[in-house]
Amino acid sequence: MLVVAPQVDSRTNTQNRSPIYGVTIPDGYRQWQLIAPALEAEPLDELRAVLGNAAAVDAYRKGTLPFPDGSVLVKLAWKQKPSPEFEPATVPGAATTVQIMVKDSKKYAATGGWGFGRFIDGKPVDEAQHQTCFACHQARVKGHDFVFTRWAP
Amino acid sequence: MLVVAPQVDSRTNTQNRSPIYGVTIPDGYRQWQLIAPALEAEPLDELRAVLGNAAAVDAYRKGTLPFPDGSVLVKLAWKQKPSPEFEPATVPGAATTVQIMVKDSKKYAATGGWGFGRFIDGKPVDEAQHQTCFACHQARVKGHDFVFTRWAP
Repeated sequence: MLVVAPQVDSRTNTQNRSPIYGVTIPDGYRQWQLIAPALEAEPLDELRAVLGNAAAVDAYRKGTLPFPDGSVLVKLAWKQKPSPEFEPATVPGAATTVQIMVKDSKKYAATGGWGFGRFIDGKPVDEAQHQTCFACHQARVKGHDFVFTRWAP
Repeated sequence: MLVVAPQVDSRTNTQNRSPIYGVTIPDGYRQWQLIAPALEAEPLDELRAVLGNAAAVDAYRKGTLPFPDGSVLVKLAWKQKPSPEFEPATVPGAATTVQIMVKDSKKYAATGGWGFGRFIDGKPVDEAQHQTCFACHQARVKGHDFVFTRWAP
């Protein structure tokens, strides 16, 4: 039997991988469970929601820290806009970024076990932006395994 | 064989059913998919997230209106509070209400096919509050099958 190796190995297709970390947007993340919504003030002026895969949700529910390898968090962000139908409400406008954290304690040992990816329209932003991720998480939420978001009760 | 009928039929246990509509908090709703987050201004000052069951999510994804019978939407609400770790962010504080819409076009024919339930700490609020639900939805979002929330892209 002749076995033909594929010419492109999807594992080494770097087009949609974040610089530094090589993180990709996970399949099906929009179906993942809600961890919590949030609001970010000006100048970003965004509504946000963090979703987690099953491993991440399980860790949140049990209070497990650090998060186990395989945990993935996805933050969706939208410009906020006034609801045209209900004055006191602010609702999602255009999608802005998708931001991802992937736990792999060996691969990302130098950054608290987390790999980061920040995407606009499905494409990773540049390396300079990715260089800022861990420093901020390290400075502010080291005591919560470098994760800002808490479970919304 | 002696068959003893249960003394309490859970279907007629009205303790945790909303007045007027008889809507209950659905099992497992916290695992449902996110439709959209939102913010509500003062005096409520709340972060919110609407989750939907599979029938509701399918209708949103396909743009199906009216929503099919069996669609259920759950709105979770929390007092908003400044993130103690990241100044520009506002995050969920204490949970306030859980609000539910259940589509049953026959049972709720008089209210656009929707039954409403508003709960605090798992208990329905009073009848007077439930009398306000449909009038507001009818006045403001009749053209979207009486549902305010749109899918967050």
